[in-house]
Amino acid sequence: MQNFEFYSPTCFVFGKDTENSTGAYVKRFGGTKVLIHYGGGSVVRSGLLDRVKSSLDAESIPYVELGGVKPNPRSGLVYEGIELCKKENVDFVLAVGGGSSIDSAKAIAAGTVYDGDFWDFYRGKRIEKALNIGTVLTIAAAGSEGSPDSVITKEEGMFKRGASGDAIRPKFSILNPALTQTLPPFQSAAGITDIMAHLYERYLTNTKDVEVTDRLIEALLLTMVHEGPKVIADPDNYEARANIMWAGTLAHNNMCGVGRSQDWNSHTIEHELSALYDCAHGAGLAVTMPAVFTYVMNHNVMRFAQVATRVWGCQMDFEHPEVTALAGIGALRRYLKSIGMPGNFEELGAKEEDIPKLVEVLCRGDGRDGTISGFVTLNEDDCTKIYKMMV
Amino acid sequence: MQNFEFYSPTCFVFGKDTENSTGAYVKRFGGTKVLIHYGGGSVVRSGLLDRVKSSLDAESIPYVELGGVKPNPRSGLVYEGIELCKKENVDFVLAVGGGSSIDSAKAIAAGTVYDGDFWDFYRGKRIEKALNIGTVLTIAAAGSEGSPDSVITKEEGMFKRGASGDAIRPKFSILNPALTQTLPPFQSAAGITDIMAHLYERYLTNTKDVEVTDRLIEALLLTMVHEGPKVIADPDNYEARANIMWAGTLAHNNMCGVGRSQDWNSHTIEHELSALYDCAHGAGLAVTMPAVFTYVMNHNVMRFAQVATRVWGCQMDFEHPEVTALAGIGALRRYLKSIGMPGNFEELGAKEEDIPKLVEVLCRGDGRDGTISGFVTLNEDDCTKIYKMMV
Repeated sequence: MQNFEFYSPTCFVFGKDTENSTGAYVKRFGGTKVLIHYGGGSVVRSGLLDRVKSSLDAESIPYVELGGVKPNPRSGLVYEGIELCKKENVDFVLAVGGGSSIDSAKAIAAGTVYDGDFWDFYRGKRIEKALNIGTVLTIAAAGSEGSPDSVITKEEGMFKRGASGDAIRPKFSILNPALTQTLPPFQSAAGITDIMAHLYERYLTNTKDVEVTDRLIEALLLTMVHEGPKVIADPDNYEARANIMWAGTLAHNNMCGVGRSQDWNSHTIEHELSALYDCAHGAGLAVTMPAVFTYVMNHNVMRFAQVATRVWGCQMDFEHPEVTALAGIGALRRYLKSIGMPGNFEELGAKEEDIPKLVEVLCRGDGRDGTISGFVTLNEDDCTKIYKMMV
Repeated sequence: MQNFEFYSPTCFVFGKDTENSTGAYVKRFGGTKVLIHYGGGSVVRSGLLDRVKSSLDAESIPYVELGGVKPNPRSGLVYEGIELCKKENVDFVLAVGGGSSIDSAKAIAAGTVYDGDFWDFYRGKRIEKALNIGTVLTIAAAGSEGSPDSVITKEEGMFKRGASGDAIRPKFSILNPALTQTLPPFQSAAGITDIMAHLYERYLTNTKDVEVTDRLIEALLLTMVHEGPKVIADPDNYEARANIMWAGTLAHNNMCGVGRSQDWNSHTIEHELSALYDCAHGAGLAVTMPAVFTYVMNHNVMRFAQVATRVWGCQMDFEHPEVTALAGIGALRRYLKSIGMPGNFEELGAKEEDIPKLVEVLCRGDGRDGTISGFVTLNEDDCTKIYKMMV
C-alpha cells in the first residue's frame, strides 16, 4: 500500500426531510451571506428551492441566487457567479442540484477568492483557498458532494477539464434519497453508471496487496448491482434510493481509493464524448467502460477475473482466467443495457467520423503530449482503436 | 435506512515513517503546547517517543509528558492528566500508543475544559467541548483513532464505561503499519478480534434494507479473515499490517454503521470480564462473541446465514438456514482459535463462580435497570446463561 493522507471533513446529513435543515447547517459552518446556485426546472418545480430558502429565512441568513447551470457545466456561468459573489460579498456558496451544480459552485467558490483566471485551476493549479461550500443533492451520481474535485467545460474549444483541492470539499452535504425519486429512469441509470465508473477507476490499480480497498470497492459495486434494478423497476423505492445514494458518496470521497494507483482513463476518454455531444456523462461511460476494459484487460487478467467472480458471480476458469475476465466485462455490459443505458456510438448519438477529432482533443488538447495515463498508458493509436470498439 | 449525520473530520496520515510528521500536524491543527500521553514500555524502548519529540522540536512546539497508561485505562491517571494540562496551559493532547492511551487522552482533553467531574461524561453526559487531540497509533484494534468514543474504568467498583462526542474525534491520526510489526502475536490477534467485534456489533441490526452498510461490513470482515492469519504467521508482513490497520479505522469511524440500529451487547458483556480480570479486551471478545451470537441467533437466523455465506464461505442450506447460521458462528470460533485467541473462561482466566457478580455489575451497575439492550434486549437470566456458555 502506498502512503496516503485521507481527509474527508464533510458533514453528511442523510435522510428524509433533511433539506429543511439547510439553513441551520449554513449557520453551523459560519455562512452569513449565501449564493444559492442551481440549474432550474425540477429544483424549482418540485418546491425544493422554496424549502431551502425557507430554511435560510428561518435562520435570518440573506442570499442571492444564480440558476441556469446546465449538464456539463460551462465556464461562462462560473465567471458570472464569481462576479456576483464579489459584488454581493457572498461568503458561502450553496449548490442545490446534482454534480453539475456542485462542480459549478466549487469553481465559483475557488474563483471568488483568487486574483487570476479561475481556469488556471482547471489547467493543473491546485486549489488552496475557496469560499465555504454546502450542497443539497438531488441525484446520486457524481459524488461531488463529498469530493475535492470539480469538472468544468470551457466553451472555447469545448475543453472539459478537472480541478482539485481540499478547500473545495463541501462543509456539509444534505442527502435526502426521496429527492431522487422524481428522477426519470434514464437519469437514475446514468447516475448508477457514473457511480460504478468511480469504483472501476479505483479498482484498476497497479498497486499490489491492497485487499481492504479492493473489498470495499467490490462491496459498493455489489450494492449497485443489486439495488440499481430496484430503482429502475420502482422509482419510488426509498430504501433502494438510500442504499445507492450512500454508496455514491462513499464511491467518490476516496475512502476506498487511498494508497493505490488509480485509472481514470475511462473518464478521460468519455469526457470528450460528453463535451462534443453534450450527452449524459453516465451514458457516455456506459459506452466507454466495456471498450476500455476489453482493450486493457491483458495488462492484468487476474484483476478482471477477480471482479468478475466477486462482483458478477462468474465461475472462475482457473485454466483460462481470460475467459472469466471477459465474462465479467460481458456481465457489466448486459447490466448497463438492462438499466437502459446505451451500448454503442449510435445509441449515444456519437459519430464514427468524429473519431480523429475526438482523439486529437483527447491526446493533444490543452497541453497533453499525445498520451493519457492510468492503469495503462494509451497513445493516439490505442485511443482510436478504443473509440472504434464503441461504434 | 434511518436518518443519520456522518461527520468524520479526522485527517488520517497513513504509511511508512509518517510519525516524523507529528509536529507538522500538531502545528497544522493549531497546537501550541502539547501533552504527550502514553503507556510506557515499547513506545519508549522502540525510540518512537523520541521520534515524536524530535518532530515537535523541529516545529518549536513545547510539550509536557504523562506516561503510565495501562490497558483498560483508569480514571486515576485521567485526573492526574487534567491537573497537568490545567497547570501547564496545554492546548493539545497527543496520544502515542493504542486504544488505551487514546481513550485516556480523550478523557483528559474533555475533562480539562469542563468544570465538573470528568466522570459525568462516562455516566451519559454528551461531550460538547475538548482540547484538540492527535494520535500516533501503535496497534490496529480499538478504532479510537477515528471515533468519537472513549472507554475508561473507574477504580472504585471497577466500572468500565464509555463516553462520546464529536469534540473528542482526533484532529489527526498518524497510522504507520510498520509500528505494529513489533507487536507480540497475542496482541496482534486481540486487535484483530476487537476490529471484527466492531464489525459484528454493527452487522447485528434490526433495521431492514441496509445493503450498502451490510456489504461494507462484510468487506472489512473478509479483509480480517484473509489478512489476519498473514500477520500471525509473519509479523513483519507490512502489506497485511497495512490492510488490517486501514480496516480497523474504517470499522469504527461508523462509515459502515450509519442509518441502522446496532448491537454492542458483546462489548457490554465483555467489558465486565476485562474490568474484573484485566484481560485483553480482544481476548475477552473472542470468548464472548460466539456465545452471544449462538444465544441470540434465532432472533434473525437469516442475518447470521448471510454473514456465514458471504464472509465465511459457508454453503447456504435453504431448507435449514439455522444450520448455515450455526456454521458461520463455528467458523468464527475456529478462526479466532487459529490466530491464538482463548475460547473459554479457563483460557481467558475467568472463573465460573464469579458469574453472579459479573451479571450483577453488568445489569445493575451504575444505574442500569436489570437489562442491557441491543440486537436483542437481555435480562439477568439471559446474561447468566450467556456467561455459562463461555465456561
